[in-house]
Amino acid sequence: MSARLIDGTAVARRVRDEVAKGVAELVAQGGRTPGLATILVGDDPASEVYVRNKRRACAAAGMRDFHRRLPTTARQEEVREVIAELAADDQVSGILLQLPVPAHLDSEALLDHIPYDKDVDGLTVKNVGRLAQGRPGLRPCTPAGIVRLLDEYEVPLAGAEVVVVGRSVLVGRPMAQLVLARHATVTVCHSRTKDLAEACRRADVLIVAAGVPQLIGRDAVRRGAVVVDVGIHRGDEGLHGDVRFEEVAEVASLVTPVPGGVGPMTIAMLLHNTLEAARWQQGSAAPAA
Amino acid sequence: MSARLIDGTAVARRVRDEVAKGVAELVAQGGRTPGLATILVGDDPASEVYVRNKRRACAAAGMRDFHRRLPTTARQEEVREVIAELAADDQVSGILLQLPVPAHLDSEALLDHIPYDKDVDGLTVKNVGRLAQGRPGLRPCTPAGIVRLLDEYEVPLAGAEVVVVGRSVLVGRPMAQLVLARHATVTVCHSRTKDLAEACRRADVLIVAAGVPQLIGRDAVRRGAVVVDVGIHRGDEGLHGDVRFEEVAEVASLVTPVPGGVGPMTIAMLLHNTLEAARWQQGSAAPAA
Repeated sequence: MSARLIDGTAVARRVRDEVAKGVAELVAQGGRTPGLATILVGDDPASEVYVRNKRRACAAAGMRDFHRRLPTTARQEEVREVIAELAADDQVSGILLQLPVPAHLDSEALLDHIPYDKDVDGLTVKNVGRLAQGRPGLRPCTPAGIVRLLDEYEVPLAGAEVVVVGRSVLVGRPMAQLVLARHATVTVCHSRTKDLAEACRRADVLIVAAGVPQLIGRDAVRRGAVVVDVGIHRGDEGLHGDVRFEEVAEVASLVTPVPGGVGPMTIAMLLHNTLEAARWQQGSAAPAA
Repeated sequence: MSARLIDGTAVARRVRDEVAKGVAELVAQGGRTPGLATILVGDDPASEVYVRNKRRACAAAGMRDFHRRLPTTARQEEVREVIAELAADDQVSGILLQLPVPAHLDSEALLDHIPYDKDVDGLTVKNVGRLAQGRPGLRPCTPAGIVRLLDEYEVPLAGAEVVVVGRSVLVGRPMAQLVLARHATVTVCHSRTKDLAEACRRADVLIVAAGVPQLIGRDAVRRGAVVVDVGIHRGDEGLHGDVRFEEVAEVASLVTPVPGGVGPMTIAMLLHNTLEAARWQQGSAAPAA
């Protein structure tokens, strides 16, 4: 292995420390303590774990933890009312609706009830539109975390060829917009791309968010490229990403491990967004990241 | 010259005829006649011409023409009130705020007062967000017109390498989203791209919306590629695009002329959007284009 590892755990810790410091400063200046409201509908065990981790991280950063739990049978209107109540509460800086919601609910419509300045997941139509228009706003946590990782490792984005594999609303699409805003030349590949390896070999920075275990091998990576793996899959021998790590680490200059790469950044950026939202609501300019 | 020409004038005529037929059908079925409201602030001569052409095309398609003219000195609130009045009027299917507005006005804020189902220019934050999320909505006229041209000439987009030069909110960015929705592998290039010609040579379909006269020459075009030129510049010897037409026509398989290529499609798609908006407001599904 010749690649250096991108240590997402360490960078995430740094972000969380920064946020804790920022929270303390805001309060010391007489501002309101930032607060994150998590909404969990139903009892999906994975979602329970995610929400618990978010709440703990939030408390550890000195923020207030508001949590609302609804039964699997909750109607659209009930969830909407909870969102409306949290939207009106100025103690609540950020509102996070844990996805997926039960199938009988319309998650897009629910998300669109979250005011865009409390939309700490960056998933409401208004924040998605603001990102696409190049206007300030709250950005989705995972792609924003990847930009932060690249910045920490001083990977230049302006003028770089960035290839994003995957076009999901959660990662691929906003990822492409974020690196475009940083002046990268960006290519979006996906399941219908004719020659995926060829397209990927152009990349100075290759970001893989395809959701397909071990899709990307050595043949898809230019020597010296930076490779970011967003995938996480549980296999017989532990966790795997979308990238064949052993192979790719032979040719890349920098690579994210799985676990310990992109994963830890998501919650860190959620905390970051919650602090930014609190500042925004208390009179600062909208976050421009 | 070996390339075939893409005849935008002919396709635009076809679209306008289709719209006129659609309007007549809607009315025959007891629906309301679609109506387009144009708002012109100030007396920029070019904007006057554009608005006049839009109003004429609208009337020619059998739609109602609502026009509001405001002085250069109009305040933000006055323009907002005009928009609010048109938004509340169910005879008005589409609202178009002619850009640019005088510099003392905040055009983004004004656009965001247009209800998204009357936003026939596809420029409000909600429609931009819906496009980026892959949800139905009204699409910006020029990029939607380019997709229509490509369809008319049976240019396959699924799996194709599409390169978009330019990342404006009006053309480049929505163009990339539209071809991504049609399953193209899409690259966005711009002024910071390191080797523009090299990136462009990958394209099966090259769409140039850089706003730089004659930027793209033969060296940037793969033999057999389809080239779409969105630029229009007045020079000593008439109109030019962003593409060096004579050179590129030697290697491309299909190319849009300037004028008579993309230009005529913009108003045609505005009419198309106005009819779609009218249908949507009268109970049809949101336009999925």
